[in-house]
Amino acid sequence: MTATVRDQALACRAAAQQVAELDAAARTRVLEAMADALARAEAPILDANAQDVATAAARGVAPALLDRLALDPVRVAAMVAGVRHVAGLSDPVGEVTRREQRPNGLVIERVRVPLGVIAMIYEARPNVTADAAALCLKAGNGVILRGGSEAQQSNRAIAAALGAALQSCGVDPAAVSVLEDLRRDSMIELLQLSDIVDLAIPRGGEGLIRFVAEHARVPVIKHYKGVCHLYVDADADEDLALDLVIDGKTTRPAVCNALETLLVHADVAPRWLPRAAAALRERGVELRGCARARECVDGMGLATRDDYAAEFLDLILAVRVVDDLDEAIAHIREFGSDHTEVIATRDAAQAQRFIRSLRSAVIMVNASSRFSDGGELGLGAEIGISTTRLHAYGPMGAESLTIERYVVRGEGQVRHPRSA
Amino acid sequence: MTATVRDQALACRAAAQQVAELDAAARTRVLEAMADALARAEAPILDANAQDVATAAARGVAPALLDRLALDPVRVAAMVAGVRHVAGLSDPVGEVTRREQRPNGLVIERVRVPLGVIAMIYEARPNVTADAAALCLKAGNGVILRGGSEAQQSNRAIAAALGAALQSCGVDPAAVSVLEDLRRDSMIELLQLSDIVDLAIPRGGEGLIRFVAEHARVPVIKHYKGVCHLYVDADADEDLALDLVIDGKTTRPAVCNALETLLVHADVAPRWLPRAAAALRERGVELRGCARARECVDGMGLATRDDYAAEFLDLILAVRVVDDLDEAIAHIREFGSDHTEVIATRDAAQAQRFIRSLRSAVIMVNASSRFSDGGELGLGAEIGISTTRLHAYGPMGAESLTIERYVVRGEGQVRHPRSA
Repeated sequence: MTATVRDQALACRAAAQQVAELDAAARTRVLEAMADALARAEAPILDANAQDVATAAARGVAPALLDRLALDPVRVAAMVAGVRHVAGLSDPVGEVTRREQRPNGLVIERVRVPLGVIAMIYEARPNVTADAAALCLKAGNGVILRGGSEAQQSNRAIAAALGAALQSCGVDPAAVSVLEDLRRDSMIELLQLSDIVDLAIPRGGEGLIRFVAEHARVPVIKHYKGVCHLYVDADADEDLALDLVIDGKTTRPAVCNALETLLVHADVAPRWLPRAAAALRERGVELRGCARARECVDGMGLATRDDYAAEFLDLILAVRVVDDLDEAIAHIREFGSDHTEVIATRDAAQAQRFIRSLRSAVIMVNASSRFSDGGELGLGAEIGISTTRLHAYGPMGAESLTIERYVVRGEGQVRHPRSA
Repeated sequence: MTATVRDQALACRAAAQQVAELDAAARTRVLEAMADALARAEAPILDANAQDVATAAARGVAPALLDRLALDPVRVAAMVAGVRHVAGLSDPVGEVTRREQRPNGLVIERVRVPLGVIAMIYEARPNVTADAAALCLKAGNGVILRGGSEAQQSNRAIAAALGAALQSCGVDPAAVSVLEDLRRDSMIELLQLSDIVDLAIPRGGEGLIRFVAEHARVPVIKHYKGVCHLYVDADADEDLALDLVIDGKTTRPAVCNALETLLVHADVAPRWLPRAAAALRERGVELRGCARARECVDGMGLATRDDYAAEFLDLILAVRVVDDLDEAIAHIREFGSDHTEVIATRDAAQAQRFIRSLRSAVIMVNASSRFSDGGELGLGAEIGISTTRLHAYGPMGAESLTIERYVVRGEGQVRHPRSA
């Protein structure tokens, strides 16, 4: 008999309370036990994964998806290392973020506590199962994992190893629950358990994320896409700008912090764009530009409005020549996705205006968009990148899986003292 | 012709961008102009309010609701003072909450920025219109106000005064927008504008809040009710505990931080409960207790499960005798609303266990539940109290209407330097 979605969620909540009450050292031991257990379970995990891959291949799944699905000893080792790394991060729970004594003597503290129960909704990559479990537990939470059906055997095997580790530490294994029922209706049921689930984090394609946002009654933190811009100002260091566009576009085009659109000041474009175009084409990048950009570079295709809105995730770059910073800002406001924007300039006032005028989660001044990542920004690890302007904005680490509450200590203070 | 909900929201978003770009001094001037304009508009506001009250009275609205609706010169002056007070608060926008230099030289800052557009959904009190507008603008946001239909004339008059002030400061008055169309369908439309509205804050009865939560596609921060507990430990200072129960229950029973349930350790109950009961009854409080509580106090009514779950908002107190801290914690976990819980004890270890085991937004040790309020906790002002475990938890001030984003400054750093 399979537990219902609600039963699984209730069990996870009870277990989450146990995790929340562990002290930092105990939680670290749990995470280390999880890493050890994953390492020991390499064989059953690879067996389960081989079944998943065989089933998917038989169903004619695309090679790119099969690659995301497939595990090998190197990928399992990376998963183990990831969990061990999270174990070593500083513990956000119990951190006092502010302390104030009021005139009436009350001592008021803001203290980080775990969120509670987090639902992770994701697609093919089985490593998310271990990564998300580790980060959620680090921050004292329980997690309900709803992966893709194509990875179900792998996810079960990973969760079984993690569960055994929890049990060996005296923690209810329901703290890491894999949703057994993968029907869409069950996902919707999970997303509507607003009395049990504190947060849903979808990770995957835009379709999945829109589905989650559409059906959720629980809070959702999401990012639809990363349409990241580089604006090369009139006053830019042109070699530096060249480094940024090459790094941003070509080092890993399929990720959300890759550049998708290049905006170039009209004063710079005639001499810089041809250099940039040559360097990018040498690396296989197709350029699609506005009329003025095409005047600077032979053979550049014409960019449509759709190109400016696109997250290509590929070696394609949209290009536009702008008259000034204001036009760049207006373009980003129209087409941007609130993810990451970059300015190359030596003019601090221009940089400040770029920062102030844009509402994106990450603004880079003279640095590559590819640093827009939890690890690179010093969070230690990342459970996602939020473009939801609430709670967390930008890369999310363990701290963003906690919430600050108030602890107030007094000596009998009351609002309205009784007359003696 | 009336603007559509979407048009109004788009206009508010454009105006919010203007507000976000003001510096702190300019925003303070806007708020001071708003206070001045409200003071000057006393006569038209009172006229409009008199129409609302007359209409409501003619429709046979209950006296308590009429009282919430009615304004007089004293209440208008309080509204003006409230806006002026918010003007003087420290500005959260632009605050650098963290700064770190990475080994690669990147300087990473977390910086507070406004949320964007906030929808306030509320009921009869017209003062919310001015309060919410002030706090939202202080934090650099635009606000769309959807008050109750019974207060529509008053809300329009208040918003007209605020809008004139904005205009006199060169800010688009759409930054403070009163939703013109009060049909339920229009509220639903507003709550589903997830590409425009960043946050909805409902304030009012549980019915309204559930309606908003049910229909929203935008993020919602809410609190359903405050079922606040006082636990009197075996080791409590008994005079202090008496002060806390009297202050918590009797000084303003109709507010959410009033006590609703008293839990008393069995060692203390026989001598302390009769004293507490006498003092409470003297102040008109009806007690409803468990069998053991009733053994301590003559004539105490029997508490049902519903009484333990109730937010009485009245001079009624549920009472239960518990064997120990664990039983108190179990009771609060079962019946609590995550709002505010109080422990009276001289034992620091017991207090620590109480804090650690409960997930409520505010925990008080030896202090009255009535301090669970933005002003009392040092926030300067309050836009609501969140029991949603995301973004803000507990009383929400101006800071909770902002979000932290990343600003990264480099000197040309890239993830993958090209070989020379």
